[in-house]
Amino acid sequence: MPLVRIDLRRGKSPAYRKAICDGIYRALRETFSVPEDDRFILVNEHDADNFSYAPSYLGISRTNDLVIIQVTVSDTRTVARKKALFARVASLLAQNPGMREEDVFINLVEVKKENWSFGNGIAQYVEAN
Amino acid sequence: MPLVRIDLRRGKSPAYRKAICDGIYRALRETFSVPEDDRFILVNEHDADNFSYAPSYLGISRTNDLVIIQVTVSDTRTVARKKALFARVASLLAQNPGMREEDVFINLVEVKKENWSFGNGIAQYVEAN
Amino acid sequence: MPLVRIDLRRGKSPAYRKAICDGIYRALRETFSVPEDDRFILVNEHDADNFSYAPSYLGISRTNDLVIIQVTVSDTRTVARKKALFARVASLLAQNPGMREEDVFINLVEVKKENWSFGNGIAQYVEAN
Repeated sequence: MPLVRIDLRRGKSPAYRKAICDGIYRALRETFSVPEDDRFILVNEHDADNFSYAPSYLGISRTNDLVIIQVTVSDTRTVARKKALFARVASLLAQNPGMREEDVFINLVEVKKENWSFGNGIAQYVEAN
Repeated sequence: MPLVRIDLRRGKSPAYRKAICDGIYRALRETFSVPEDDRFILVNEHDADNFSYAPSYLGISRTNDLVIIQVTVSDTRTVARKKALFARVASLLAQNPGMREEDVFINLVEVKKENWSFGNGIAQYVEAN
Repeated sequence: MPLVRIDLRRGKSPAYRKAICDGIYRALRETFSVPEDDRFILVNEHDADNFSYAPSYLGISRTNDLVIIQVTVSDTRTVARKKALFARVASLLAQNPGMREEDVFINLVEVKKENWSFGNGIAQYVEAN
């Protein structure tokens, strides 16, 4: 059910971008108990002048490799699980594709369980079927 | 007031994409009582490696024709109306442009009525004017 | 902490788009007390057939210069501050790059303070550090 939007500067290889998607999906599986195969990820690549970021906000040194990850999820996770997600995403993306953890920006948008339809016009999470 | 974001694979004709926009707008009018002419729809077309989806999550068979629709709306609708929206969008997109209902993914993000400004720097839904 | 998404028609100069980003950032600083250097702004440029808008909804006359601004922020602002933000953004964008105030569309998506990680896998707004 998470819907993931990834925004980054243009120029990374398909393998690099796939590693980011894979890492986020794996972190969601491990920390948010997202079901297997529940993977919907959109990537937007930007030219430099359409990607504006703070290079040192909160004392964190960011580079042009910054990746902004916005995840829409159901509003069922505790603060502890959110912290676990953030840590796991940063750790996995540091492993592969080898990102700096400073360059991993994550934001969660929470919605009600009834706000999803995964196909066929049905609100699967609140239907009997 | 709904702000609609549509994400899909690149390659569909303008007429096909317009039919999707028209169907969503009509479904919002019919099921969410959205006012006439209240239509703000953004479409993002993706290359294959920037559009990752689950081909069978929840037993629904999805294809490359999958369309991911994220609608930001005021938080005033019941579960019943949300179900009606989902069903109507899928039904209308099946009619035109002839999509498979399995390929219609919808997510709602709800916000307060005061969170909109439709121009002129005014929060129209909470202003006296 | 605000994450800003700007959607507009393709064709505006880098300077024009930068002026929009600068104006929004300044308005957020002034009306939402956003910290200095807290600036994360994504711009998406669309072809005409991927940017559908209501030309006169609520009696406001919009043109192809319409800019749709969606700001994800923590849920800590009053209605009065939101109204101030809307007014300030419209006013600043009218000054530079010289937009019509009718063409400034703004939507706020509010999230909990714990929903942000600005790097290093930490939820900075709820951590002791």
